[in-house]
Amino acid sequence: MKAPSAELRPLAWKDVTIEDRFWAPRQKTNREVTMPHVYRMCKETGRIDALRLQWKAGDPNPPHIFRESDVGKWVEAAAYSLATHPDDQLDKLADEVIDLFAGAQQGDGYLNAHYTVVEPGRRWTNLRDCHELYCAGHLIEAAVAHFQATGKRKLLDVLCRYADHIDSVFGPEEGKKRGYCGHEEIELALVKLYRATGNGRYLKLGKYFIDERGRQPHYYDLEAAQRGDDPKRYSAKDYSYSQAHIPLRQQSEVVGHAVRAFYCYSGMADIAALTGDAELLSACKRLWKDLTRHKLYITGGIGPSKHNEGFTEQYDLPNQSAYAETCAAIALVFFAHRMLQVEADARYADVMEQALYNGVPSGVSLDGAKFFYVNPLASAGGHHRQDWFGCACCPPNVARLLASLGSYVYSAAPGAAYVHLYVAGKATATVDGQELTLLQETDYPWDGDVKITLRLPRAAKLDLMLRVPGWCRQHKATLNGKPVAGAIAKGYLRLRREWKDGDVVKLSLAMPVERVAAHPSVADDVGKVALQRGPIVYCLEQCDSAAPVRSVVLPDKAKLTARRNGRKLGGIVEITGPALAPAPKAWKSALYLRADQARLRPVTIKAVPYCLWDNRRPGAMTVWLARTR
Amino acid sequence: MKAPSAELRPLAWKDVTIEDRFWAPRQKTNREVTMPHVYRMCKETGRIDALRLQWKAGDPNPPHIFRESDVGKWVEAAAYSLATHPDDQLDKLADEVIDLFAGAQQGDGYLNAHYTVVEPGRRWTNLRDCHELYCAGHLIEAAVAHFQATGKRKLLDVLCRYADHIDSVFGPEEGKKRGYCGHEEIELALVKLYRATGNGRYLKLGKYFIDERGRQPHYYDLEAAQRGDDPKRYSAKDYSYSQAHIPLRQQSEVVGHAVRAFYCYSGMADIAALTGDAELLSACKRLWKDLTRHKLYITGGIGPSKHNEGFTEQYDLPNQSAYAETCAAIALVFFAHRMLQVEADARYADVMEQALYNGVPSGVSLDGAKFFYVNPLASAGGHHRQDWFGCACCPPNVARLLASLGSYVYSAAPGAAYVHLYVAGKATATVDGQELTLLQETDYPWDGDVKITLRLPRAAKLDLMLRVPGWCRQHKATLNGKPVAGAIAKGYLRLRREWKDGDVVKLSLAMPVERVAAHPSVADDVGKVALQRGPIVYCLEQCDSAAPVRSVVLPDKAKLTARRNGRKLGGIVEITGPALAPAPKAWKSALYLRADQARLRPVTIKAVPYCLWDNRRPGAMTVWLARTR
Repeated sequence: MKAPSAELRPLAWKDVTIEDRFWAPRQKTNREVTMPHVYRMCKETGRIDALRLQWKAGDPNPPHIFRESDVGKWVEAAAYSLATHPDDQLDKLADEVIDLFAGAQQGDGYLNAHYTVVEPGRRWTNLRDCHELYCAGHLIEAAVAHFQATGKRKLLDVLCRYADHIDSVFGPEEGKKRGYCGHEEIELALVKLYRATGNGRYLKLGKYFIDERGRQPHYYDLEAAQRGDDPKRYSAKDYSYSQAHIPLRQQSEVVGHAVRAFYCYSGMADIAALTGDAELLSACKRLWKDLTRHKLYITGGIGPSKHNEGFTEQYDLPNQSAYAETCAAIALVFFAHRMLQVEADARYADVMEQALYNGVPSGVSLDGAKFFYVNPLASAGGHHRQDWFGCACCPPNVARLLASLGSYVYSAAPGAAYVHLYVAGKATATVDGQELTLLQETDYPWDGDVKITLRLPRAAKLDLMLRVPGWCRQHKATLNGKPVAGAIAKGYLRLRREWKDGDVVKLSLAMPVERVAAHPSVADDVGKVALQRGPIVYCLEQCDSAAPVRSVVLPDKAKLTARRNGRKLGGIVEITGPALAPAPKAWKSALYLRADQARLRPVTIKAVPYCLWDNRRPGAMTVWLARTR
Repeated sequence: MKAPSAELRPLAWKDVTIEDRFWAPRQKTNREVTMPHVYRMCKETGRIDALRLQWKAGDPNPPHIFRESDVGKWVEAAAYSLATHPDDQLDKLADEVIDLFAGAQQGDGYLNAHYTVVEPGRRWTNLRDCHELYCAGHLIEAAVAHFQATGKRKLLDVLCRYADHIDSVFGPEEGKKRGYCGHEEIELALVKLYRATGNGRYLKLGKYFIDERGRQPHYYDLEAAQRGDDPKRYSAKDYSYSQAHIPLRQQSEVVGHAVRAFYCYSGMADIAALTGDAELLSACKRLWKDLTRHKLYITGGIGPSKHNEGFTEQYDLPNQSAYAETCAAIALVFFAHRMLQVEADARYADVMEQALYNGVPSGVSLDGAKFFYVNPLASAGGHHRQDWFGCACCPPNVARLLASLGSYVYSAAPGAAYVHLYVAGKATATVDGQELTLLQETDYPWDGDVKITLRLPRAAKLDLMLRVPGWCRQHKATLNGKPVAGAIAKGYLRLRREWKDGDVVKLSLAMPVERVAAHPSVADDVGKVALQRGPIVYCLEQCDSAAPVRSVVLPDKAKLTARRNGRKLGGIVEITGPALAPAPKAWKSALYLRADQARLRPVTIKAVPYCLWDNRRPGAMTVWLARTR
């Protein structure tokens, strides 16, 4: 079977520099505050010292089954950062942690502190719940990143040995366990390991984990029985929690734990692309459709329910009780990014952008030291970022995403260079063997004007593919000052010509304030609108408003104005305009009034980017506003 | 201290006959279907046979700590029914059950099957969680009702002995336990027992339970320690769950489990009235204020949260996830009714009516055999009545409320007769020693015209107090065909004169369709209206609508029409009118659209009484509709 496509390959993080006003300050804060904070918390909570394997029965704080994955994600973030922003001290610290991982590895390659010192006899006895392979996956991602960033092989070698060990334990061959992890992650990691090493066994093992998932007789049933557990006593009740209720190829509905689901789908997309597996790709596309038609918050958040940290039925997108875990939005970025490479379709980039500018950055405070695990779209005032969590997957996940952001901006393909995101900075690509530098100048996402200068050692014929975002109703392009037309191919403006050094393309994306409505089946959003400008979703915060923000009514005719405010929240475009709010006098002490007595009075609203809420005085917040026509 | 007021006394259920089109059919169904159903379920589930005390260790289905309260409520319902609708078979069945209660009583008067046969040594060791006194309370209510209905003393004597035993165990005196029940109920029951027997010890014991509640050192701490339990391991976390966090006299906020709270407040109101305890009454009034200003659904439902079956913060009134237990609405009726007698203020009758016509009757299906435990104000289509529950407090509670409904309609007071509710039928009262019959003719709640004919053996001077409902903006009265004016006193039209036999008063209450808005702090109702006509709150049900009901938008200007439909749902007034709903074509597969593309199309809505929803084809339902101005 022919590879479905997979012609795009993302430019690597180290080949892209970011110098804009949105991401560059966040990356700086990430390096200077978030990453040291995550390291310190990993240290203070014993996550790092757990790797010394000195815990003995009776000691406090036994090594946890999956908390070393947080350390892995920190190493991964450090690696990305080292590639773009060399830092001797960070380099040394990463090497120290890597030494600990190396020291914790057992003779047979096995590497998990918990199952080495706390439950030494019980390795691989509970894949359903115990995350050993998930941890392995995160360590593999760290190892690949560290190798690619620094050229150092130590962690990569450790993880290759561990992957070899895993390969000796799991697989379809006689005598091996036919298991797979309850929390997907190893699949996409093995693909990265394959790409970094060229060793096809890792790809095969990743594919095995994808293929085996959900088959009957069900491994989790057998495994539970073998442990002496009743499989029916599974706390999550149903294997759909782990996307293991039926084989992945047969799945059409986005279900279960959101992070698991989207790490899994990311691995599926990788394997489909690499092995030319059209059936698997088709499952990915069905899942994408279910997500984007029924289960995606406007912020790019996914997984509405706290109960399963995941999905429920179609159109169930409550605002205040939205779970929308930060890691889930990141996982969506991973999946969208992979599908984008396979399909070269801007719809995937649209969703990737939606998460990247909204539900992902909301996960970390402006100062870089506080985090949302849960990202609701409305709050009565009690929801705030915390400096850490018992289950602290989100902080290091944000750190590695921000540090590797460059890799999401461009792709190269045979005869083409793709610009997916508009981010001021520079990128170096190789297209058809020819090196090419793209200089982006823009104040995106605050402004829709983008100037791209091409630097080429010699003239080259290629397609410059510029994404026209789904939110954009009107765009214009010029080449060296003159209007230029181009076909739109799957959402990309295709500029095909022989490019010369110094050619300048200007793209102008109209960026008015838009009111967005949700599908009428989203009960919580009926009669409401959200404000969006460019990729940025806005919200009202109580500290900007005299009237209770959740009671504001926005007339369809009210003219909203976007205005740069350089002093607010690190510099934003703010939306202001007239609206209505209940006249408090009408209410006195009443809880209910005749509707004609519930008078409204004019108020002015100020809306700020959703991703920046809860960085000022605590208070209520809402993304969706009641509209009146 | 002088009694705060307590001048009103409700006419007893046996002195009131109901012959209207709303309640009379429900009472008939209650007698013919619900009560036999509850008896049968109590029988089939072993609740009745548990009283035989034949359970032995190892047998299945051990007598439960509080399920005999369901049997008590059935006896109570049977008693009310026997008084107004004699029925030899029911009389005999009640006597049989009463014999079982008598047979289960221990030599010292103690009466609880669970602690007699399952945990014989552990009586009164866990008042916080184990409901012994709650059960005692329900049996006392049954005993009083049965005595008053039939004149038979058997159950009353049994419960007097039990109450005497309880009095010997609990109280402030040296050597007694200073405990009180985690689930209030005994307090109001002891007041009934006092009223039925005249024995002041019961009133004193009830007052003790009220006074002791929430005092420090906290009884539940001491009791847990004595059991060897860590008090901190209390599953409800906080004694506010049981209104026991601070003494009741200091409480101002409606908190915790809703049924517990309102049974408790009912007992408080009783004790305050009987003992002239102004401080206690003042606490009742503060709690009333908190409820009616911040925590009351428009349906009369209370207690929004499933988590604690009760209250959360102010204005937290979500619709779809509303808990609003049927028993809690009934408990609110109890409290409102008691406060009404003390304060003679129609505000209390307004809320009592609100619950009686909406959140209480929703608890039972039209056919009488299915029940809501939970009464949400919106549903995606998955919420339905069931024929029974493991914890089956609601079905027999509805049964006893319906059977005793007559007692909520009128009160007598020195020099006055009060009409609180407009219900066709007849009532016999004694005012200042003079007997008086009131004949009500009306089609209330479907129509606002009420004709009251007075029958008097001789002319008598008294105030006829006719409630002008809070929902009514315009009323007119005539006396013997001529317009009559009267002062409004605390919401009652006072007609003071010397009445003659055959005098006819006609009251006309304007009953247009009203749109109601909720306080802007109720996040779920922002930009929405509910439809109400007279006391009836309406809803949209999917089976009446082509457009998804939860997506309907109602323009303020849309003219709504009320129309009698005698064939629908047993005969109702239906509301119809033009509204708007999303044009499905606009959406195709989109989850989000620009608001200007989210076009609406005209639709016709039909609204039916909320209390009758889920009696036809299953589907979505909503009370609150998006409005547009």
